[in-house]
Amino acid sequence: MTLTFESDDSRYIAELAEYVAIPSVSRDGDPATLRRAAEWIASRIDFADPQIVETGGHPAVVGAWLGAPGAPTVLVYGHYDVQPTGSLDEWKTPPFELTSYVDEATGEQRLRGRGSADDKGPVYLVVETCRQFLAQEGALPCNLRFLFEGEEEIGSPHLASYVRAHADELGADLVISADGAQWRPDEPSLSVASKGLLALDVTVTGANRDLHSGRYGGTVANPIHALTSLLATMHDEEGRITVDGFHDGIPALTDERLAEVDAVAFDEEAYRADLDVPALHGEPGLSTLARLWTQPTLEINGITGGGSYTVIPHTASAHITCRLVPGQHPDAVRAAIEAHVAAHTPAGVRTEIHVEGGAVPAYTIDPAHPGIQIARDALEQVYPGEEVLLAVIAGTLPATVLFEEALGAKTMFFSFALADEWHHAPNEFFRARRLREGMRAWEILLRGLGAAENLGAAALVTAGAEN
Amino acid sequence: MTLTFESDDSRYIAELAEYVAIPSVSRDGDPATLRRAAEWIASRIDFADPQIVETGGHPAVVGAWLGAPGAPTVLVYGHYDVQPTGSLDEWKTPPFELTSYVDEATGEQRLRGRGSADDKGPVYLVVETCRQFLAQEGALPCNLRFLFEGEEEIGSPHLASYVRAHADELGADLVISADGAQWRPDEPSLSVASKGLLALDVTVTGANRDLHSGRYGGTVANPIHALTSLLATMHDEEGRITVDGFHDGIPALTDERLAEVDAVAFDEEAYRADLDVPALHGEPGLSTLARLWTQPTLEINGITGGGSYTVIPHTASAHITCRLVPGQHPDAVRAAIEAHVAAHTPAGVRTEIHVEGGAVPAYTIDPAHPGIQIARDALEQVYPGEEVLLAVIAGTLPATVLFEEALGAKTMFFSFALADEWHHAPNEFFRARRLREGMRAWEILLRGLGAAENLGAAALVTAGAEN
Repeated sequence: MTLTFESDDSRYIAELAEYVAIPSVSRDGDPATLRRAAEWIASRIDFADPQIVETGGHPAVVGAWLGAPGAPTVLVYGHYDVQPTGSLDEWKTPPFELTSYVDEATGEQRLRGRGSADDKGPVYLVVETCRQFLAQEGALPCNLRFLFEGEEEIGSPHLASYVRAHADELGADLVISADGAQWRPDEPSLSVASKGLLALDVTVTGANRDLHSGRYGGTVANPIHALTSLLATMHDEEGRITVDGFHDGIPALTDERLAEVDAVAFDEEAYRADLDVPALHGEPGLSTLARLWTQPTLEINGITGGGSYTVIPHTASAHITCRLVPGQHPDAVRAAIEAHVAAHTPAGVRTEIHVEGGAVPAYTIDPAHPGIQIARDALEQVYPGEEVLLAVIAGTLPATVLFEEALGAKTMFFSFALADEWHHAPNEFFRARRLREGMRAWEILLRGLGAAENLGAAALVTAGAEN
Repeated sequence: MTLTFESDDSRYIAELAEYVAIPSVSRDGDPATLRRAAEWIASRIDFADPQIVETGGHPAVVGAWLGAPGAPTVLVYGHYDVQPTGSLDEWKTPPFELTSYVDEATGEQRLRGRGSADDKGPVYLVVETCRQFLAQEGALPCNLRFLFEGEEEIGSPHLASYVRAHADELGADLVISADGAQWRPDEPSLSVASKGLLALDVTVTGANRDLHSGRYGGTVANPIHALTSLLATMHDEEGRITVDGFHDGIPALTDERLAEVDAVAFDEEAYRADLDVPALHGEPGLSTLARLWTQPTLEINGITGGGSYTVIPHTASAHITCRLVPGQHPDAVRAAIEAHVAAHTPAGVRTEIHVEGGAVPAYTIDPAHPGIQIARDALEQVYPGEEVLLAVIAGTLPATVLFEEALGAKTMFFSFALADEWHHAPNEFFRARRLREGMRAWEILLRGLGAAENLGAAALVTAGAEN
């Protein structure tokens, strides 16, 4: 039995365009706009008694279809919020007008727009698959719950309290995240791990006011000088993180794991050329892929101070995020950075650290988990002849750790975004063919999960076995 | 014979408030607004056949009163443009509403507003003095020309070509700048030197687009990391500039000059406390005043890149200005910085330097110049019992070097702004009593200059004798 999809993608694209047109930027968007996006996706799960629920921040959308007694229950997770656009000048077309175009280099049809890949497209196709099950077969193959949050791009500050308070209504044997991304356009992949995240700001303060750079220059410390000196101590020239204690708790990288990673085909030169950098860069002694999959990062995402005029600013600050790997605890990493900043604060200034809420440790799911096996089968059917790669998401999905803790359920990533689709950057896009491929894969996955036994227990037994 | 001024300051303050109300920010202001400021100050020199003249940028205001045959001719220089406001949140009252208030700590009446001290107040009082000469005595004591430019705060990019092309119409025995500042509120001072200025931007570029910090972190150089590393190599921990060749051409600081500077009363602890920094900072082995008066600076005025979200930005940049001392040539300093950046560019990124036009070397006037002697007398009469200090303007007045070159005339600074009046910063102010003191001092100065012989020649003979 298979579902019948549309003969062309025009309806799918038009509907996704409606969704993308709502500029649901969680960082600084208007709450009413965020709510409109919530309402839009809620309207698409009208078969599941959708509710827009308050979380203390932007609302979440929940729903449940529990018409398959005896079958497993799966919680589908995604988010309706999007990243800020960044500089509008850099967008080839307006970020909130989903624009279909043919990529010259590949001949592929693509859909450009903020949120097209992260996470509106991937969520849209799940929901559309479910709608077709109900329309064509009158039922879903397994019980489904839905949770779409509106704060994923700002670290999900209210999700934890909501999920903990409503664990009964969200209970499931397995969580499937429609967020995340498959790794490469030319091979199907499943993610079995994601990195944690810790975000903080470092602010350096000098004098009590901005000063004329002539009248005061050379007499007081300049907070920008101090900040650049301080930040420069956090990595060595070759890209190693040099913050004492940052790596504490990370198990030594085994030769076996390294061999596993190095066995994955990865063209460093093509990767370099795509990014147009003079050279790849990072912790020496490891391949690029090994760095990406096995190493934590300490990234200065933003820096700001003063302006383009003759001033000694009185303050300068940097936004830092760390991507954590298994073994690192966010609190310990925070303490290591605080100690480093205290020890390396240059003379003549004061430093202050503000740690954002919502830090999360890294997450893993055992490759032997039955959900992974079923998902692998689904991908092999949609992409016949291709081997399914077990990959690491070097990004962070804060909800995963929470679901394990609050619901006792592992989370599996099953997204049809691809990692090269300029997530978080100007000109984010989603490949049009992935709408159709994703719907077929979800159909097969849901049928497989509906037939599975003991989906929850297997996961918990093996939790933590993977690094 | 003395001029009679108003019995109170209300007219002066009301007129200055009109002038401050025109937000003539040269960096990014509307050209029509700049022109309104030009028209305002032109209307105040209606006795001197004022002209608003095109320069290629914001216009200049020129005028001449030449009714004193046989007396010297003096060119009065100032500017009608102002610095950007900086953050409006930091202003206690709106920047373009001149606000009279009593300072709690000192009991002084002050006038808060952008441009009140730099340079609208100091120019206003010169012009008002001239108006009173004409109203009360029917003539000025010497011939006066006026040149008020509209681009001083952006490095006077069009002044040089204008002055060179119109040298005949601007010709004078001496230039007096109503820009600049006296050094301290509690003692009169004259500036005998000012520092030069070189401004440039350093931009670091990594990948061809902003990247998701999870999906790419650890594989490519982050331009902010590279920029902070690069900038951190430009000073050592103690604040010495470590750019090879930066100091080339600067004569060794003599024990005599050092003793002269160190003989000036300067309370480092009060200076530190006023700025509220944990410690003063800069080149070790020199007093704070010696650093300020004798040492060049390399100041990072602004830095920007990325934002407060999980991005590896594709670019980051810094604005740098250098304050130069006698002996340094701007071109050589630029070359030294370019070589330093090339040699210290971290792996994995590209750097680019953009040098702003309008760089100027340092400037000096001999303390024995007759204009300085006359000005000293004027200050001693207005501030009886106070010794007049010969100070260095650690800021830059680009016009000085130009006037010497194009007009063959030295420039003397005679401003009634004070260096502590938060020039270039939020809450810039001007002391109300200085309006009156300044007018009286200009009256005495103009009378003295009118009686002087050979004002021009003495200056040229001794040019360059001072470091």
